[in-house]
Amino acid sequence: MGYSKNEIEVRKLEHILLCKYCNVEYDKTTLLEDVELIHRGTSGINFNDIETEIKLFGKKLSAPIIVSGMTGGHTIAKEINKNIAKAVDELGLGMGVGSQRAAIVNEDLIDTYNIVRSYTDNLVIGNLGAVNFIVDNWDEEIIDKAVEMIDADAMAIHFNPLQEIIQPEGDLNFKNIDKLKEIISNYKKKYKDIPFIAKQVGEGFSKEDAIILKNIDFDAIDIQGSGGTSWAKVELLRIKDDETKDLLKKFVNWGIPTAASIFEVKSVYNNIIIGSGGIRSGLDIAKCIAIGCDCCGVALPILKASLKGWEEVVKVLEKYIKELKIAMFLVGAENIEELKKTPYIVKGYLKDWISQRL
Amino acid sequence: MGYSKNEIEVRKLEHILLCKYCNVEYDKTTLLEDVELIHRGTSGINFNDIETEIKLFGKKLSAPIIVSGMTGGHTIAKEINKNIAKAVDELGLGMGVGSQRAAIVNEDLIDTYNIVRSYTDNLVIGNLGAVNFIVDNWDEEIIDKAVEMIDADAMAIHFNPLQEIIQPEGDLNFKNIDKLKEIISNYKKKYKDIPFIAKQVGEGFSKEDAIILKNIDFDAIDIQGSGGTSWAKVELLRIKDDETKDLLKKFVNWGIPTAASIFEVKSVYNNIIIGSGGIRSGLDIAKCIAIGCDCCGVALPILKASLKGWEEVVKVLEKYIKELKIAMFLVGAENIEELKKTPYIVKGYLKDWISQRL
Amino acid sequence: MGYSKNEIEVRKLEHILLCKYCNVEYDKTTLLEDVELIHRGTSGINFNDIETEIKLFGKKLSAPIIVSGMTGGHTIAKEINKNIAKAVDELGLGMGVGSQRAAIVNEDLIDTYNIVRSYTDNLVIGNLGAVNFIVDNWDEEIIDKAVEMIDADAMAIHFNPLQEIIQPEGDLNFKNIDKLKEIISNYKKKYKDIPFIAKQVGEGFSKEDAIILKNIDFDAIDIQGSGGTSWAKVELLRIKDDETKDLLKKFVNWGIPTAASIFEVKSVYNNIIIGSGGIRSGLDIAKCIAIGCDCCGVALPILKASLKGWEEVVKVLEKYIKELKIAMFLVGAENIEELKKTPYIVKGYLKDWISQRL
Amino acid sequence: MGYSKNEIEVRKLEHILLCKYCNVEYDKTTLLEDVELIHRGTSGINFNDIETEIKLFGKKLSAPIIVSGMTGGHTIAKEINKNIAKAVDELGLGMGVGSQRAAIVNEDLIDTYNIVRSYTDNLVIGNLGAVNFIVDNWDEEIIDKAVEMIDADAMAIHFNPLQEIIQPEGDLNFKNIDKLKEIISNYKKKYKDIPFIAKQVGEGFSKEDAIILKNIDFDAIDIQGSGGTSWAKVELLRIKDDETKDLLKKFVNWGIPTAASIFEVKSVYNNIIIGSGGIRSGLDIAKCIAIGCDCCGVALPILKASLKGWEEVVKVLEKYIKELKIAMFLVGAENIEELKKTPYIVKGYLKDWISQRL
Ligand SMILES: Cc1cc2nc3c(=O)[nH]c(=O)nc-3n(C[C@H](O)[C@H](O)[C@H](O)COP(=O)(O)O)c2cc1C
Ligand SMILES: Cc1cc2nc3c(=O)[nH]c(=O)nc-3n(C[C@H](O)[C@H](O)[C@H](O)COP(=O)(O)O)c2cc1C
Ligand SMILES: Cc1cc2nc3c(=O)[nH]c(=O)nc-3n(C[C@H](O)[C@H](O)[C@H](O)COP(=O)(O)O)c2cc1C
Ligand SMILES: Cc1cc2nc3c(=O)[nH]c(=O)nc-3n(C[C@H](O)[C@H](O)[C@H](O)COP(=O)(O)O)c2cc1C
Repeated sequence: MGYSKNEIEVRKLEHILLCKYCNVEYDKTTLLEDVELIHRGTSGINFNDIETEIKLFGKKLSAPIIVSGMTGGHTIAKEINKNIAKAVDELGLGMGVGSQRAAIVNEDLIDTYNIVRSYTDNLVIGNLGAVNFIVDNWDEEIIDKAVEMIDADAMAIHFNPLQEIIQPEGDLNFKNIDKLKEIISNYKKKYKDIPFIAKQVGEGFSKEDAIILKNIDFDAIDIQGSGGTSWAKVELLRIKDDETKDLLKKFVNWGIPTAASIFEVKSVYNNIIIGSGGIRSGLDIAKCIAIGCDCCGVALPILKASLKGWEEVVKVLEKYIKELKIAMFLVGAENIEELKKTPYIVKGYLKDWISQRL
Repeated sequence: MGYSKNEIEVRKLEHILLCKYCNVEYDKTTLLEDVELIHRGTSGINFNDIETEIKLFGKKLSAPIIVSGMTGGHTIAKEINKNIAKAVDELGLGMGVGSQRAAIVNEDLIDTYNIVRSYTDNLVIGNLGAVNFIVDNWDEEIIDKAVEMIDADAMAIHFNPLQEIIQPEGDLNFKNIDKLKEIISNYKKKYKDIPFIAKQVGEGFSKEDAIILKNIDFDAIDIQGSGGTSWAKVELLRIKDDETKDLLKKFVNWGIPTAASIFEVKSVYNNIIIGSGGIRSGLDIAKCIAIGCDCCGVALPILKASLKGWEEVVKVLEKYIKELKIAMFLVGAENIEELKKTPYIVKGYLKDWISQRL
Repeated sequence: MGYSKNEIEVRKLEHILLCKYCNVEYDKTTLLEDVELIHRGTSGINFNDIETEIKLFGKKLSAPIIVSGMTGGHTIAKEINKNIAKAVDELGLGMGVGSQRAAIVNEDLIDTYNIVRSYTDNLVIGNLGAVNFIVDNWDEEIIDKAVEMIDADAMAIHFNPLQEIIQPEGDLNFKNIDKLKEIISNYKKKYKDIPFIAKQVGEGFSKEDAIILKNIDFDAIDIQGSGGTSWAKVELLRIKDDETKDLLKKFVNWGIPTAASIFEVKSVYNNIIIGSGGIRSGLDIAKCIAIGCDCCGVALPILKASLKGWEEVVKVLEKYIKELKIAMFLVGAENIEELKKTPYIVKGYLKDWISQRL
Repeated sequence: MGYSKNEIEVRKLEHILLCKYCNVEYDKTTLLEDVELIHRGTSGINFNDIETEIKLFGKKLSAPIIVSGMTGGHTIAKEINKNIAKAVDELGLGMGVGSQRAAIVNEDLIDTYNIVRSYTDNLVIGNLGAVNFIVDNWDEEIIDKAVEMIDADAMAIHFNPLQEIIQPEGDLNFKNIDKLKEIISNYKKKYKDIPFIAKQVGEGFSKEDAIILKNIDFDAIDIQGSGGTSWAKVELLRIKDDETKDLLKKFVNWGIPTAASIFEVKSVYNNIIIGSGGIRSGLDIAKCIAIGCDCCGVALPILKASLKGWEEVVKVLEKYIKELKIAMFLVGAENIEELKKTPYIVKGYLKDWISQRL
């Protein structure tokens, strides 16, 4: 795609620095603030009995939280992945790595990903881009490489049309993505029967998408809706010429808010749903579970913490778990199954959205 | 509970000072502003005929107002309780005392509560925490002690999961609270047949709670919903370390707004309902009665007034009564029974809430 | 009522000065802004053909506008009434005078009211307070005096519970107002068969009121809803002691917004409806007619103009007529009957109001 | 009409200068922001396959965009028309000219319109005012003159009651506009069978209008709703006397927002609909197509660009096309037909509007 490896590395570093220092989040929200959990004045449970464990993709998690896949492919990425791995190992959580394409193309970079396995046996999720199966004609062999590279427990295939269209170097062909069905099926038959996750990168999936993903036999959908990291905003900070800036601004609020996307997807999809995109507290996590998710994913706050050290990652994640447990105490849910059944109210724009689409 | 009596006394004083000097109220409202009473242009009544009397828990009140239980257990508390008692006696209203646990544990403190009986024969309501019946294995004997201590006309059992979870020294076990059914029943059989009230402390009860409280045979529910004093805010002012502050902020708006909680409870509970939490005018009181309450409770404004003297408490309560009477005149209600039947409109978020939950 | 005539005169002058110089209008609106007339891009009419004439209470009006009754009883009132009379005569509109009680009690003041007949033969409406028929035991003879005093074409009986309750000297008995039925019927039989109008003074009538007024056989209802002049605000400016101020503030927004009151009344009342309270443009008038009124009334802006001279009153009223005609042109209504059938949209809080009450 | 040609020319120039330098747009919006297209996370198409072509009025357009008719009749107008013609020729789009009345009245001005044919063979739409067929008794011969003047592919007949009523020199008779049916039919029989478009100038058409326009056999409706250029605002800037200013302010927000007008019209009209009035991006265009339009029209931004040169017009239009294509990519629409079927959500006031009117 006419860009040198070096240019891509520079771009990835720029992304990380922008995420660290600038406001790269949507102006619009996840709409999770339109979900209100109902306080239980009698509670009826013992805080110390609360259990947050779940089982996901064959592995146990001490709480329904994974770190969303973010990076790999250069020195800083290696450090970030290491810090995240140490933290999730410490806490019994799971994590994803960033797109493994860099190491597929250049084996020298493999250690920037598989470093995670030096620090944890917990759930680790691999990451490849859907678009490359089309434009680069990838097949099950590439998947095998990616899985083996990090001994992945599951594979995330990311769909990122907005990101591709706004990047000067983007791949713009998502036609015939249903060919993923055969590729995944072949992989599972020839190699390992691990779960495959369809993942957005911050714009969410619609109901229509979920039907397509269901037909491709994806085992899980990782929502990654709008309200958290905005790729249009990241690019807006990078781009210099005024015309492209002006154009980007039009799409800075594009995307399905996370809460809306969760309702869209769960209306047609019965398998695992991961609530993600703009998850910023244990209260957000409790709301996602209550409205239908099995687990949540967090990216940006963990990236920031990981740049300070693995203990910082532990701190952030511990806070989320604590908040989740307090929320569970206040709605009287002793475990995640009970939290899934807790009553809630939907208000404002989210209510409008649901009533018109579902 | 590894806290010394001294530490608890200091904490209670801190609470009073914070309530006196700082903004300790919810950012969100009671939603009573979403209730609109309908003006009656023809009125049809004589202002001088308006009667605000009610009968509550076997005692007459000149207006449907009680001072919610707040304090006891130290010198300032004694002064506060005395001032409130003198005022309610003067006006023919009722009052509650704060949690009597301090005097259950330490009999030296009894006079800080029973001082009220030196000043009034009116309705006085005792106060114990539901959680202590579980964690401290309290039984009907403790209730007896509390009742006799102040010759209580009724007993409030407070449920305060949020308060407990955010206090470093909190009791966190509300499991098996239905054992209160037997304890209360035993008490009534062995000692006195007085009414028992389930009381929140500022987060309100849900419909689900009300069903449980009904099964425990509570004679009344004291709503104490969100919109007035916020315990998370009080604690936020006390706490020093940044991490706990950050966590508390997430729950500063937790709770069911008073008006919503009233609708929740009355949808399943047919006994006495006291509207409380953020009641700040006679207009609020008129609205509570119109939407289904039998009486209202006020805490914070009375605490503040009581620190200035009993005449100040009288002044505040008199203003509420006057406003209540004007509201009754303007909706054409000659007495509380008619006020209960006055038409009203529910708008905004409260309307949403009701339509989704009830 | 222990107030001397002098004190009452001073109070009336104070009212006029406050209305002239201060903001005495509601913070809340008439809700007419929640009514949207639908633009007709094709119009379909000739502007010069537009006719705004109506017939009201046996007299012709060149446009559906009357000046609401405001004053009488002192020298400035006489000047005001004269200026209004000259202006409505010039334009072919109608007017009311203020409460005639002053002149009933003291015949010396009659000329401050009947001055209007020196300047116009147009529609003139008399004005008495409903409350006086109860507290002062007025009967049909008093009505006769009032009618003859100004050769009234119709009589307005004003209902003003809020005004009475907030004035230190207020009459507070609206009990048995249905006795007005017999008094009015007696008057019509013994004296003249002129129409009687039930009139508010800025808080509007409810549906329940309208049923009562219908039973009293009122020939018309003059809405005078909330959104324009607020009597609580006027009093707030006059009163000095802090406690009364605090109390008045609670009721400063009390009342049924004009648009809501119109919908309330028309839902049960089939006779003449006058839209009034906060009418401030010809567009407001067009909206009132479209949602069900036969005519509109304006007070405050005319009071202000009348203090400058009768030409100023003409100017203000001419502007209203011009705006009304433009609105009619833009919705394609050639006359008031067509304007009554023009489509409109109801939004926001007014929509909520209607859906819950009607 | 007692205005000299010179005065009219000066007024037209004033309009252009005010549009160039001042804020002449509505305070209220098109309500297109209440339309939300649904992101397709899987996209499913190849960006490079996207086709935006449409056929309109017998001509091909490379994208569903025309420049709305604006000017003619003086030297600057000629320059403007030339620049727009060069730009639409370059890009394969269409355009309209401004009202041709000036050149009907004075043949010397013809070249200020027909200059466009020196620069493009693309779709060019003529423009005459509906009101003149009534007040000036125009007939099919006038249409013939206008068509031949610019070899028009289609004729727009503009309806502008607001504009006429607020201009001191306005024509105020829209009565019997259905006589246009015969005139147009005669024209088509005697001269050329080209399509006729009913066009507003910024206040939109209602459902009732659309029924009338359908009966007149208009082949297309050009919405030109509220939210973009506001003629009341333009006049407000021109007018000097305070009274007229005050009156104009009342109507500054008059009109049907573009999105609402599109829904109104399409509910009763099955022919070509052009979405216009406040179209300011390719995203707006995508929304108009999704909710039912065949093409969009843009005026003000093109006027501004044309005053800088034709390349600037190209730039603006190219940006719109690019944004439209990105939106199509993100909703997975390969062509305009697919875009017409893309799902969307309607929220806020637009939702209210539709639910009450349609
Ligand atoms: C620096 C950075 C790099 C990312 N790289 C990838 C990636 O390679 N593959 C992927 O699927 N998502 C990637 N993401 C997207 C995240 O997984 C996630 O979908 C998105 O950031 C929204 O979540 P958040 O709001 O919690 O940040 C990246 C996000 C960030 C912030
Ligand atoms: C200083 C203070 C102490 C309180 N102590 C108690 C208590 O001991 N027991 C209890 O049931 N509620 C207690 N409360 C809660 C009040 O009864 C009431 O539920 C709460 O303040 C909400 O009402 P408000 O908004 O009118 O203040 C206390 C409140 C305050 C302000
Ligand atoms: C100075 C003043 C005096 C008034 N006096 C009377 C009165 O004597 N009788 C009456 O029925 N209404 C009286 N009104 C009320 C008006 O008729 C009208 O109901 C009210 O002002 C609301 O209309 P507005 O918003 O157009 O002012 C008075 C209003 C004003 C401003
Ligand atoms: C300077 C100017 C002149 C216009 N002249 C005409 C005209 O002669 N005939 C017509 O039908 N519309 C005319 N219009 C109206 C436009 O065609 C269009 O309906 C209106 O500007 C709303 O679109 P916009 O918001 O994109 O500007 C004119 C608009 C402008 C800005």
